Amino acid sequence: MTTMNLAPQSAHPRQARTVFRGGLAVPTSGWSAGYTQLNMISVPADWAYDVLLFCQRNPKPCPVLDVTDPGSTTTALASEADLRTDIPRYRVWRDGHLDGEPAEVVEVWRDDLVTFLIGCSFTFESPLVEAGIPLRHVDQGRNVSMYRTDIECRPAGRMHGPMVVSMRYVPEDLVDTAVRLSARMPAVHGAPVHVGDPAALGIADLAAPDYGDAVAPAPGDVPVFWACGVTPQAALLASRPPFAITHAPGYMFISDVPDSEYLIQ
Amino acid sequence: MTTMNLAPQSAHPRQARTVFRGGLAVPTSGWSAGYTQLNMISVPADWAYDVLLFCQRNPKPCPVLDVTDPGSTTTALASEADLRTDIPRYRVWRDGHLDGEPAEVVEVWRDDLVTFLIGCSFTFESPLVEAGIPLRHVDQGRNVSMYRTDIECRPAGRMHGPMVVSMRYVPEDLVDTAVRLSARMPAVHGAPVHVGDPAALGIADLAAPDYGDAVAPAPGDVPVFWACGVTPQAALLASRPPFAITHAPGYMFISDVPDSEYLIQ
Repeated sequence: MTTMNLAPQSAHPRQARTVFRGGLAVPTSGWSAGYTQLNMISVPADWAYDVLLFCQRNPKPCPVLDVTDPGSTTTALASEADLRTDIPRYRVWRDGHLDGEPAEVVEVWRDDLVTFLIGCSFTFESPLVEAGIPLRHVDQGRNVSMYRTDIECRPAGRMHGPMVVSMRYVPEDLVDTAVRLSARMPAVHGAPVHVGDPAALGIADLAAPDYGDAVAPAPGDVPVFWACGVTPQAALLASRPPFAITHAPGYMFISDVPDSEYLIQ
Repeated sequence: MTTMNLAPQSAHPRQARTVFRGGLAVPTSGWSAGYTQLNMISVPADWAYDVLLFCQRNPKPCPVLDVTDPGSTTTALASEADLRTDIPRYRVWRDGHLDGEPAEVVEVWRDDLVTFLIGCSFTFESPLVEAGIPLRHVDQGRNVSMYRTDIECRPAGRMHGPMVVSMRYVPEDLVDTAVRLSARMPAVHGAPVHVGDPAALGIADLAAPDYGDAVAPAPGDVPVFWACGVTPQAALLASRPPFAITHAPGYMFISDVPDSEYLIQ
């Protein structure tokens, strides 16, 4: 048996999922370059229509890429994956309250859970890097910064809540490139929802994100905001279903699907 | 009062809906150039999750652009529209059987109906025409040709059935342009699912479409096939919900939304 010398960026998704299953709990930005990363939300079947409709009505933050049948622990987007163990860190929710951030959810899993896998902006980070756009959060070894905004999502049944955005500092002369490249990937949030002044989204302080870590800008950087798949978690807080499981923000499910699958050429 | 001299192509969507509400029953290809046209399917609320999930799992034929609340006769995509009267021709379905093609459905409407509006390939016909691609069906005054294929959709709950495609004859040297332009509009079926030999889709005879009219090719034309929003109607036949209302194939709902809204630049 050889010692595994794992380079996160070049890890195959199956290899990444195996080490997360083994207990490694780190943010997945920068992992398995070229493969699609996903947000997860699992709710009782009784709530599935509300969640699916909420996503349909809010496609920028909630582009749904797969929905499981009730109780299923697998997805069409990743072979041999177990949705209960292969995400580095989960969140368990009861009546809209956060009730723990375990590394696996085998014990609390329920047979009536329907799981939604939702596109993640980490997916278009590879094309941004290839175009010479630095990723400050990766360079600083931090999770991406995410914020609740004052933009209310279009409600659906019992599901309602504010849009959440991820923010990346981009050098001013590369903002147009970042917009253009992400716009080609609508299934993973697409073009930014806002460039510049965070006050326009009701964000008071970029140094105090609601999810993830604060990230330091370089001189000349401009904040660029993308709709974020953590939005359903803000809706869980507001809508209070009796039970739910999600990924922890920034700790994503890495699928077997190449980024190019979701690229509009 | 003046006599209305209506040019279909330049009719504003509201004007088009008004004349359809008044009883004009014609296919809508070529109408209200530059505005998004939509397929409709209304099912009892009890079936809504199955339909929405079927659409999510089959996004090429079934890109959902709006879902109403139960009983609602309006949509966010068109002001002052009435979903029961503003489509030129409807289809009423009982237990999976076609039970009439009325010009309005006011009498048979039910308070538990959830309506899905699904993208239509007529939407990308304007960019095709602007690029110099002739539309044979419009030139010949016919409805577009549509076919059931032998490609089975991914099932969802009680909903299952084959993919339906629309076919347009395109001059061989313009096929690449047709592919490129439609690919930029994934919300209205996007790139073709197939170019060339219809046998690859299990279509025996292009002159005998399952929906719409037969259309004659010009010399050098190649058949190009796009996923079609009539697919849910084929699923109604197969899945037999107790009641449903749809548009008649080719007789679409014309929304107020500009095509450009669904264009990935």
